[in-house]
Amino acid sequence: MPTMHPMLEFFLATRKQSEKLCAPLATEDYVVQPIADVSPPKWHLGHTTWFFEEFILKPYVKNYKTYHEDFSFVFNSYYETVGKRVVRADRGNLSRPTVAQIYSYREQVTQAISTLFDAPITEDVAVLLEIGIHHEKQHQELLLTDIKYILGNNPLLPSYDDKIIEYPPDATQTEWISIDEGVYEIGHKGDAFCYDNELGRHKVYLHDFSIRNTLVTNGEFLEFINDGGYERFDLWHAEGWDWVTSNNIKAPNYWHLVADNWQYYTLQGLQPIQLNVPLAHISFYEAFAFAQWKGLRLPTEFEWEVANDKLQWGSRWEWTESAYLPYPNYKKADGALGEYNGKFMVSQKVLRGGSIATPNNHTRHTYRNFFHPQLRWQYTGLRLAK
Amino acid sequence: MPTMHPMLEFFLATRKQSEKLCAPLATEDYVVQPIADVSPPKWHLGHTTWFFEEFILKPYVKNYKTYHEDFSFVFNSYYETVGKRVVRADRGNLSRPTVAQIYSYREQVTQAISTLFDAPITEDVAVLLEIGIHHEKQHQELLLTDIKYILGNNPLLPSYDDKIIEYPPDATQTEWISIDEGVYEIGHKGDAFCYDNELGRHKVYLHDFSIRNTLVTNGEFLEFINDGGYERFDLWHAEGWDWVTSNNIKAPNYWHLVADNWQYYTLQGLQPIQLNVPLAHISFYEAFAFAQWKGLRLPTEFEWEVANDKLQWGSRWEWTESAYLPYPNYKKADGALGEYNGKFMVSQKVLRGGSIATPNNHTRHTYRNFFHPQLRWQYTGLRLAK
Amino acid sequence: MPTMHPMLEFFLATRKQSEKLCAPLATEDYVVQPIADVSPPKWHLGHTTWFFEEFILKPYVKNYKTYHEDFSFVFNSYYETVGKRVVRADRGNLSRPTVAQIYSYREQVTQAISTLFDAPITEDVAVLLEIGIHHEKQHQELLLTDIKYILGNNPLLPSYDDKIIEYPPDATQTEWISIDEGVYEIGHKGDAFCYDNELGRHKVYLHDFSIRNTLVTNGEFLEFINDGGYERFDLWHAEGWDWVTSNNIKAPNYWHLVADNWQYYTLQGLQPIQLNVPLAHISFYEAFAFAQWKGLRLPTEFEWEVANDKLQWGSRWEWTESAYLPYPNYKKADGALGEYNGKFMVSQKVLRGGSIATPNNHTRHTYRNFFHPQLRWQYTGLRLAK
Amino acid sequence: MPTMHPMLEFFLATRKQSEKLCAPLATEDYVVQPIADVSPPKWHLGHTTWFFEEFILKPYVKNYKTYHEDFSFVFNSYYETVGKRVVRADRGNLSRPTVAQIYSYREQVTQAISTLFDAPITEDVAVLLEIGIHHEKQHQELLLTDIKYILGNNPLLPSYDDKIIEYPPDATQTEWISIDEGVYEIGHKGDAFCYDNELGRHKVYLHDFSIRNTLVTNGEFLEFINDGGYERFDLWHAEGWDWVTSNNIKAPNYWHLVADNWQYYTLQGLQPIQLNVPLAHISFYEAFAFAQWKGLRLPTEFEWEVANDKLQWGSRWEWTESAYLPYPNYKKADGALGEYNGKFMVSQKVLRGGSIATPNNHTRHTYRNFFHPQLRWQYTGLRLAK
Repeated sequence: MPTMHPMLEFFLATRKQSEKLCAPLATEDYVVQPIADVSPPKWHLGHTTWFFEEFILKPYVKNYKTYHEDFSFVFNSYYETVGKRVVRADRGNLSRPTVAQIYSYREQVTQAISTLFDAPITEDVAVLLEIGIHHEKQHQELLLTDIKYILGNNPLLPSYDDKIIEYPPDATQTEWISIDEGVYEIGHKGDAFCYDNELGRHKVYLHDFSIRNTLVTNGEFLEFINDGGYERFDLWHAEGWDWVTSNNIKAPNYWHLVADNWQYYTLQGLQPIQLNVPLAHISFYEAFAFAQWKGLRLPTEFEWEVANDKLQWGSRWEWTESAYLPYPNYKKADGALGEYNGKFMVSQKVLRGGSIATPNNHTRHTYRNFFHPQLRWQYTGLRLAK
Repeated sequence: MPTMHPMLEFFLATRKQSEKLCAPLATEDYVVQPIADVSPPKWHLGHTTWFFEEFILKPYVKNYKTYHEDFSFVFNSYYETVGKRVVRADRGNLSRPTVAQIYSYREQVTQAISTLFDAPITEDVAVLLEIGIHHEKQHQELLLTDIKYILGNNPLLPSYDDKIIEYPPDATQTEWISIDEGVYEIGHKGDAFCYDNELGRHKVYLHDFSIRNTLVTNGEFLEFINDGGYERFDLWHAEGWDWVTSNNIKAPNYWHLVADNWQYYTLQGLQPIQLNVPLAHISFYEAFAFAQWKGLRLPTEFEWEVANDKLQWGSRWEWTESAYLPYPNYKKADGALGEYNGKFMVSQKVLRGGSIATPNNHTRHTYRNFFHPQLRWQYTGLRLAK
Repeated sequence: MPTMHPMLEFFLATRKQSEKLCAPLATEDYVVQPIADVSPPKWHLGHTTWFFEEFILKPYVKNYKTYHEDFSFVFNSYYETVGKRVVRADRGNLSRPTVAQIYSYREQVTQAISTLFDAPITEDVAVLLEIGIHHEKQHQELLLTDIKYILGNNPLLPSYDDKIIEYPPDATQTEWISIDEGVYEIGHKGDAFCYDNELGRHKVYLHDFSIRNTLVTNGEFLEFINDGGYERFDLWHAEGWDWVTSNNIKAPNYWHLVADNWQYYTLQGLQPIQLNVPLAHISFYEAFAFAQWKGLRLPTEFEWEVANDKLQWGSRWEWTESAYLPYPNYKKADGALGEYNGKFMVSQKVLRGGSIATPNNHTRHTYRNFFHPQLRWQYTGLRLAK
Repeated sequence: MPTMHPMLEFFLATRKQSEKLCAPLATEDYVVQPIADVSPPKWHLGHTTWFFEEFILKPYVKNYKTYHEDFSFVFNSYYETVGKRVVRADRGNLSRPTVAQIYSYREQVTQAISTLFDAPITEDVAVLLEIGIHHEKQHQELLLTDIKYILGNNPLLPSYDDKIIEYPPDATQTEWISIDEGVYEIGHKGDAFCYDNELGRHKVYLHDFSIRNTLVTNGEFLEFINDGGYERFDLWHAEGWDWVTSNNIKAPNYWHLVADNWQYYTLQGLQPIQLNVPLAHISFYEAFAFAQWKGLRLPTEFEWEVANDKLQWGSRWEWTESAYLPYPNYKKADGALGEYNGKFMVSQKVLRGGSIATPNNHTRHTYRNFFHPQLRWQYTGLRLAK
């Protein structure tokens, strides 16, 4: 029996994993979009498929017959190069294509990509395929966090999966890791896959600093709440304080005060808060205010990268103090794929680490995640530095 | 074989009809809410069911076991008396309860109401039941217009039913009906069912007027468009002109200019405009501007009611010049049902007639429909007077 | 000494009165616009002047030299026929033209109009002049209410005039006036000046009703507040209740709870509430809710007009139940003056009466004032009917 | 004759300079606020005065009698520590206190501060006084840019001062300055005054780079416009492109296309664009897109600081690629003054340089100015790097 091409294996496993994540859903769960940031699960399934069709099948497969001529309009996310698209906030207003049609679309595209491997694949296609697979893995994380948002904001608070563990206990002893002043190298090294925003390995000068090996826990954050952290303007950025007051924020996302006890919505349904597990679902503003309250600070993304092999590798995306900016000599790709990362390099913060929603092997110590500072539907937490 | 109680028969036929209207839908179509005015079909199915449960089963059936304690929160529309409810614009963000659960809910409630007829039903229950049935019939009209909006705003423009006729040709010869000046009686008479807003039969003085027996057609409205009606501010109310310019309105709802030809979305999909059929899907502002352009006017609701037996009884809700106000001696009911009509008697216009979406026998010549002047997702048209 | 032409006398007295109303202002008070509905006093002074220049001097005076070519852009209020204009909400962003320039503009235009009387004036000019004078008188009322808003929303709460009486005590005994059922005539009669919206004298049929000779007082309204009127949704229209909750309304405009005592801002500064004076500064929603709470209702504008000679002629604009609609056979004027009234005949309520801010002889028993139901910076009150 | 204390001299000169900047204004120009970012000139005059009163006179002068107890509410800008304040966007709604009152307030406070020098001043007071003076100098820049906005957005486009030069010709030859890779020191050194955000002198590692000695000119930017720079999404950040399309941006602020020729509003009124002068009034997004179009980039603030002694020291605030973040070991002050800089260190970009509106000696090569990326009412320009 011939061995399967490793990239085809990787591709097929990734395709299957997306579908596995959706297995517990009712058809209705695939459709809704409670806030603009959260896309309907069926949109993720269609969009990741469209990516392969648009960037590989259409340009590289002779006589490829597009599944449906309007799907490009429906499933394009933000690629201006590729043409018009459904306004992001309208994704949840679309009942069609149905879930069944999207699974059929997936099947055609998965099959067509697989067929490419009947002959040796070109370097161009291999590069695009690798990006497409990693792109789908990125969306798997969003798929899970979006599902959590959809179910966790439903008044019935349904469970997604009674076995999933979002809040693993942290058995490690908290320690402060000290790093010496000096010049360090930052950025991706070697030939393995990475995104363009990690490239341009370069030097930075770091001053002496210490960083905690463990993440901040629910219990620590509860002390901040109980000490009035959400009422003390002096701990917050001005725009963070506006965010707190105009949204009446009193706790991390998914926390509910039920009869004077804090509970939180998890993918297993509503549960009492566990104290010794890493905090999740906070904004950058909350991370910053907590650090201020402690008399400490957040690490920069460079400090984090240098120290990372000594850290308890966590289960949260960790807000850093760093703004999301290009590395020296950053070059964006030509054409539509140049829109992947570069055009977001303003007004966002870098997060490092990875989370329990991150697919296997999808993150690395040079990986740069980024979000606007007020967002908290991802598994976002924090680590302290000084 | 015992005959079925006529009210039970009426009840069961009505329940069945709501479900029949939804038969062509995919599960996904039941879920979405593209604009706040349009509710998800599954919400209509649940809400009409909740109405029977809340106002009849809970108070009148001893030991009645509520289907689900949270459904009152989900399916209450606007009854402040009954408690908190999902914000209207959030109905489309709810994937649960699922469609299947709602059909099961319907079944339990339909069954429980049917069981009431095992014994003679009381007068109180009979009154509430009649309201509940008419309430569900009202929602059947919304169900169809909401479905049209959901499908007609989907980029795939799917068909709902290939046999449905929304634009019946008008075979009648246009004539002007003249009515003499004098005192006329207005309002509901007799014991048959009507809503509280039709009661308080009273006298009004009408001056000589004429009213057209036929509705305005697509062809007539096309002349208005071609004559620049949407660009001439002098034809419009000030707030109508604001509406036109800030929403960039160029035609009735569902009209599309495709390669310089006007087409419209119908429940059979996109089709060329038919000229000799009654116009639909216009706002009050458009009705008024059209009449201004003709040098004519809209009838008042009183003129309409007096002349109605001589009118081609149309297939459109007809905008009138009248504001929706209480009749002399209007009395609203006590409790939650007092919220049915009275609290909307400000800032809305009266529509008379009925439409192809109106259930059988659901309208009457004294029936007062009402909407805000900018809305046009109903089958709204117009008739001229002078 | 030759007698002055009565219309010139009327014109000059009106021009002088506008300036007298502004005499107590600081230059800065002329400039600001705290909300879109409130125009800067200097804008009123300029706009009423522009009206004479645009509609009389430019078309009828040969070789008339416009004061400044850009003033038409600055001082046009809403006449689309006349061309582009400053967006209403931007009036308060304009520091230029200065107050001194506007007084100089007024002087040139007043002088040029006066010069017209050196020869006999034509009928056309006489008609326009009469409209222009009444137009300026209308703006005098707005001038005073806008000044009250500007000063009354300043944290320093300055006094405008220590002698002005806004809340005259009502010495009359409250009585209910009964009017018999029958056909009545409504609308302006005779040759004296009136607006186009009062014309088209016509018959209406009124049923038996009673109407109170006195206005509702502060003291009566305080009972409504103390009885929780602002917390009882069942008393309110649905959109009124939205208005109360989203604006957190607890009392009429200008009322302040100071150390548990109700005070109100008057043009003499902050003062304790007087109980036996007519209530002012309420919205239609509040008027309606108060009447509901009393188990009574507001009169229609027709009831008011028929009963008016038996009423304590009040010091408030009285909200009626009537919507602002055209009378039968209403004809709007050609050209720009056709925009004066007709284009506002949707979504507004009629107010009858007049107020302490209404200039002498400016109102009549057929006068139809109109505002959107949520507005309350005018001297708006209410009268009960049943 | 005794010499005046140098700090008193500095104080008095600064106070006088603010008033000199306002000398050409009409009273009305002091009052308006066309957008939230632009404060009324009278507010600047009052706020800078309040700063001295609040932080020096009240705490350090025994029996000091506050000028007016409500002025703290009116003139506090953003110091949460000090109490409630007028909402920023409402500053232009306040006609009182009048301009004359504010000048009288200034006089009292200037006098009271001067009197402090009758005795030796303490170190505490000296520190606060220095901050207060620099604070007023900062507001002098805003005063001029706000005046430009107020006059430049008035339809009459009045001139402020016929002699002022905003666009000095750049006589320098353009050259590229090359800087070698290595570790450099960044931040303020020495004892002279600086803001807290410049402190914490520290090392950074810079890679080889080149930076242009001259600023980008109007002429160069015109080529970008003519080449369709505002229509090419690939040159822009995603949020920059949103800004361009939703605000319909076609050129820098104050540029007007008059009969197919570009003109711009200057403080001398409308003038033809000069090509050989430094560009002004652009957003960060425009700076970035221009650099992309050139195939170059913006410098970081560190590159700028290292190279600055070789640069044509310009007349514009220069957008850098750097986000506004704290330096290592940044410590914010205790109490209200801790709110001066630190709480803005998120979502803003650093600008370096200084502008023709910057007061004498108010900027330095370590000075860090910061604004949100879309703002352009300051004299903002750009310099290229590679």
